[in-house]
Amino acid sequence: MNKHIAVINGDGIGPEVTAQSVRVLNAIAEQFGHEFTYTYCLMGADAIDKTGNPLPDETVEGCLNADAILFGAIGHPKYDNDPTAKVRPEQGLLKLRKSLQLFANIRPVSTYAALEHLSPLKAKQLENVDFVIYRELTGGIYFGEKKVAEDYSEASDLCVYTKTEIERISHLAFKAAQQRRKKLTLVDKANVLESSRLWRKVVQEIAPQYSDVVVDFLFVDNAAMQIILNPKQFDVVLTENMFGDIISDEASVISGSLGLLPSASVGAATALFEPIHGSYPQAAGKDIANPTGSILSAAMMLDHFGLHKEAEVVRAGVNWALANGFVTKDIDPVNYYFTSTIGELISDFVHNRVATDV
Amino acid sequence: MNKHIAVINGDGIGPEVTAQSVRVLNAIAEQFGHEFTYTYCLMGADAIDKTGNPLPDETVEGCLNADAILFGAIGHPKYDNDPTAKVRPEQGLLKLRKSLQLFANIRPVSTYAALEHLSPLKAKQLENVDFVIYRELTGGIYFGEKKVAEDYSEASDLCVYTKTEIERISHLAFKAAQQRRKKLTLVDKANVLESSRLWRKVVQEIAPQYSDVVVDFLFVDNAAMQIILNPKQFDVVLTENMFGDIISDEASVISGSLGLLPSASVGAATALFEPIHGSYPQAAGKDIANPTGSILSAAMMLDHFGLHKEAEVVRAGVNWALANGFVTKDIDPVNYYFTSTIGELISDFVHNRVATDV
Ligand SMILES: [Mg+2]
Ligand SMILES: [Mg+2]
Repeated sequence: MNKHIAVINGDGIGPEVTAQSVRVLNAIAEQFGHEFTYTYCLMGADAIDKTGNPLPDETVEGCLNADAILFGAIGHPKYDNDPTAKVRPEQGLLKLRKSLQLFANIRPVSTYAALEHLSPLKAKQLENVDFVIYRELTGGIYFGEKKVAEDYSEASDLCVYTKTEIERISHLAFKAAQQRRKKLTLVDKANVLESSRLWRKVVQEIAPQYSDVVVDFLFVDNAAMQIILNPKQFDVVLTENMFGDIISDEASVISGSLGLLPSASVGAATALFEPIHGSYPQAAGKDIANPTGSILSAAMMLDHFGLHKEAEVVRAGVNWALANGFVTKDIDPVNYYFTSTIGELISDFVHNRVATDV
Repeated sequence: MNKHIAVINGDGIGPEVTAQSVRVLNAIAEQFGHEFTYTYCLMGADAIDKTGNPLPDETVEGCLNADAILFGAIGHPKYDNDPTAKVRPEQGLLKLRKSLQLFANIRPVSTYAALEHLSPLKAKQLENVDFVIYRELTGGIYFGEKKVAEDYSEASDLCVYTKTEIERISHLAFKAAQQRRKKLTLVDKANVLESSRLWRKVVQEIAPQYSDVVVDFLFVDNAAMQIILNPKQFDVVLTENMFGDIISDEASVISGSLGLLPSASVGAATALFEPIHGSYPQAAGKDIANPTGSILSAAMMLDHFGLHKEAEVVRAGVNWALANGFVTKDIDPVNYYFTSTIGELISDFVHNRVATDV
């Protein structure tokens, strides 16, 4: 298979973690006889420094012409601490999401025995946790009409959803459930909100098209409890933008490390794959960042290409590294390996594993 | 001090847990030389059965004439399972909240060493957790204008806040912080929502009136993480209605048992005190329900009367019972005590403790 990938290193630790993903992707390509080519594009503080623009036109074009986008991280303190800055790194990502109409943010949540000591939850809660959150990303109250009275006596935000917006992400979530344990949980507040009642109605209407998927419904306040009490009950969680923001961040802490968590954003055009962690500028250039979130994002990209076996091999490599103590400083501050070493070890695993299998 | 208390037993386990609170209040009255009188009022399924109305006029009147309301729980399965039911028990509570303009819901969250085994969080996370959430209860998106298109192509909910609504609960929260560890955390989403920016503005304007209180701000998605990762950082948490619904339910699970958690709802007229647990109809009449949530609600009522020493004695009684294994079946299914025994033991503690002190 030939695939063309737009690579956006971005800021901070973005370049170093992304480099390890490319290395792993190259190992996959070599072992499975695929050809992956890469176009490097600028975005964020890096792009501002080089072009004055956080999202140059060539980046949008490069992304639209690619089969997928691998993205590192965005943000730099020199912009955060300057309230007068007219251009900000984050604008690049927001504009790119808009250009690509990335309406679904997909976040898998899994736990690893090797990270139990880092999780705030007890081991009992962490067993067999393996779910994925489908968060609507372009609608709802974050994008609805905003008003504030001139005298600041009142302010409002409107939460709007159209049937079309709900349908398109619901189909993605149902299809994902079919590939997984065949359970979909809609998180809403349908006992109170009209927009939530529309979500529930649309999901109920679509459900018969996916008759092998069991659908259930959970109010968002209850979901916030269940994610801590019994996270293994979930398979695919579908929800609107703001609820997804809250519960996906809540869910991200249960694995014990943000450094491991991948994500995908899918829309009308090219899909984008990125670790959920930020640019972590303090660690930049030190070869100590955890490349696992990026490498698992690359695995999600392989799944997106339909290369499920390849994705599984990458995930097996990550599991193998974790289980054998090949981890970065954030996981084990005493016996740790460098970013590049982890990338090399997982690439080697891919080569060896596939060579042994064949 | 003479105080007149309206008691609403309500449904399910409501009567039995409330009876233990009254017993403890009577012990306090006797030991400290107060006079507490009680008017019993009907609400919920109990009121429907007896009068056809989930909130009879006499109940509203009784509550308005009282110094405080002690409430048990509401809800009965015979109404839950009957979608044709025109009157529902829960309507009683919603109407009462409205009649009393209860705009602030107050929920303390603390952890107990004796319950560590029941918490989903590790012991490390549970140490020194002691905070209280002030949730706005009558504004925001739950009460804003709701619309749905006739063809169900679109639906919306409006989140509105006025400065006045924000100010009145903020003053309560600041005053609470002054009585505690002098820290107030506003949870909002001011990076995205106009209504949140108004919350932040109003809180910043009020802050100088409480110069001994340190104020900080947390986005709600981050708050959902911090409640699990590091709950001891919080003292008073102030937030709008929906964020409060989500984070107070999330926070309620960290102690290990919903049966222990009290709450208060405060407004323009009489304040209401109730355990956060529901009517738990399966346990009704068996003398096995946990009365601690109700007893700690009675302690909040004593604080509300300005009887802080008395409230402390009640809390000390609850701590003593927990620490000595005097717990109900929900906490220890093997060696457990009856609801009425716990109430009796805590009353005895009040008598003995105060007698020893004097
Ligand atoms: Mg977030
Ligand atoms: Mg709730």
